[in-house]
Amino acid sequence: MRKNTSDKISENFIINKILKKLNFNKLGTFNFENDAAYLNASKNYKTIVTTDTIIENIDFFQTDPPESIAQKIVCVNLSDLSAMGSIPKAYVLNLSITPNINSNWLKKFSNRLFLLQKKYNIYLLGGDISKSKELNITATFFGEARLKFILPKNKCAEGDDIWVTGNLGNSYLGYRIMKNSKLKITKKNLNFFKNSYLYPKPCMFGNIASKYINAATDISDGFYGDLNKILNNRLGAKINTKNIPLSKTLKYIISKNKSKISIDQILRWGDDYQLIFTASKSYKNIITNLGKKNNVKLSNVGSVIKKKGIFDDSKNLIKNLSSFDHFC
Amino acid sequence: MRKNTSDKISENFIINKILKKLNFNKLGTFNFENDAAYLNASKNYKTIVTTDTIIENIDFFQTDPPESIAQKIVCVNLSDLSAMGSIPKAYVLNLSITPNINSNWLKKFSNRLFLLQKKYNIYLLGGDISKSKELNITATFFGEARLKFILPKNKCAEGDDIWVTGNLGNSYLGYRIMKNSKLKITKKNLNFFKNSYLYPKPCMFGNIASKYINAATDISDGFYGDLNKILNNRLGAKINTKNIPLSKTLKYIISKNKSKISIDQILRWGDDYQLIFTASKSYKNIITNLGKKNNVKLSNVGSVIKKKGIFDDSKNLIKNLSSFDHFC
Repeated sequence: MRKNTSDKISENFIINKILKKLNFNKLGTFNFENDAAYLNASKNYKTIVTTDTIIENIDFFQTDPPESIAQKIVCVNLSDLSAMGSIPKAYVLNLSITPNINSNWLKKFSNRLFLLQKKYNIYLLGGDISKSKELNITATFFGEARLKFILPKNKCAEGDDIWVTGNLGNSYLGYRIMKNSKLKITKKNLNFFKNSYLYPKPCMFGNIASKYINAATDISDGFYGDLNKILNNRLGAKINTKNIPLSKTLKYIISKNKSKISIDQILRWGDDYQLIFTASKSYKNIITNLGKKNNVKLSNVGSVIKKKGIFDDSKNLIKNLSSFDHFC
Repeated sequence: MRKNTSDKISENFIINKILKKLNFNKLGTFNFENDAAYLNASKNYKTIVTTDTIIENIDFFQTDPPESIAQKIVCVNLSDLSAMGSIPKAYVLNLSITPNINSNWLKKFSNRLFLLQKKYNIYLLGGDISKSKELNITATFFGEARLKFILPKNKCAEGDDIWVTGNLGNSYLGYRIMKNSKLKITKKNLNFFKNSYLYPKPCMFGNIASKYINAATDISDGFYGDLNKILNNRLGAKINTKNIPLSKTLKYIISKNKSKISIDQILRWGDDYQLIFTASKSYKNIITNLGKKNNVKLSNVGSVIKKKGIFDDSKNLIKNLSSFDHFC
């Protein structure tokens, strides 16, 4: 990590006064004073690497709390590590920050990182700080997994159960609220859903169940789009729409705002960072029990079929499966 | 790495038509189709991690050739891996690209990455692509080294020789030319120095000599500033100014442009990506021979002394050592 000797909002200030606490005194970080750092890999494990960039006005609103932005950069990456069946270990952080970012913003941002590091047992290995016209945050996360339990995205088998963790749509409703879409909704619910958008939580079930999973991905681009990636133009899926996990409150709000929000919209939107995974039907009980034991809500939403495409309860083909693209 | 199903300058196009060749068919990349990738670490080696972000109008000019930008993002990171005494292995790439970037730009950029990957024996492990208002490129590089030969930045000892690789200042002169500073210079030299700025080459001597080095860093922020980091406010340095490696042509140009460019400016400017390292005097011959064998120019520019500060031949203290800071 680069370091400098001037003060105030200098690189030196940011590294030594704001970020240093995040190294958790790990030897490999060299106290952020070296050109690079080293990662302690466990014997017989592979180092899993994932990286994500989030940018203002695309992945978050400029006025979002710094705690929310910290939560998002950690969540998007942890979610990928989970989808690979791995345990998180450490990360590096690249901050490209705009002139309006002050030390108060940075403190709030780093304090949230600190809390998340404690929660997920990870530490900051190093990084880079730059000046920028727009806030652009990249994190590269490292996890570990045994080679045979690394989860591929596209190795599902015909007959597999399709599972979804948690509830879908809470983040989407929060996003719609933030965009001021005039939905009929109580103030209490309003805050709950806004927070679901602002503070997504990764589902860390991937490593817990990796022995029993055939294919997995996190829902970052939309249920349909991400399921489609699992199927990989090789197999299809039959979905039991009623089993798709939506909270009671969300269902109620949809029923009161039928012209404005639909389940179809929800299934084409990501940002819940839940997992979709497929597993052999013979593991149904084991997986159900693992969910209960680890307090992870699991829904069996359908099964993998030979016929390509995704079909609803009435055997109708779901169309336009392509999911979020930054460029389209 | 994220993937999408639409075409043209979609994520799908960029990943499959532009970047896929860069994975060198390594298993751990999952052909860029998974949520993450895995890194193959060699037994008994530590994985060295470094990361750098480069941004338009700060680290390069908007109109620079894409090949130059590719060269820079690779060079800044390889240089850090070298300064740590490690051998490069792989990297991940985060591209935040502006609407004016077209497929022709991306092809030139990725073709240069391909050449550099062949040269330095590295492959692309994965990455992320985003839309952005300014071109912002992050790369996180992985190398490996045995723990006992990882080079710290600040463990030099009193009496150590101070070494510099290659020549300094070529990149600075190139930068001045690019900024149109009306220097007296022939066209042939003009192109040579512009190319030194546009296409920096990392000095990969760090791993070769790591057994004999006490402290090392790459000159990314300026000779004085980076040497100051090595000394770490604990020791000082006596510099033989005449031993500081400047090419004959650069010396000639300085002599013809005395009012416009000085050695002092050069020593406060980075971007040459040469190494400064210190080693016990007893290794002088071994290091000299390693340089000759590997065709790396080495200059013994001074020695580490007890008295804090950096002193020139006349024992004058060099002042204002703080180097480049993005925020000051």
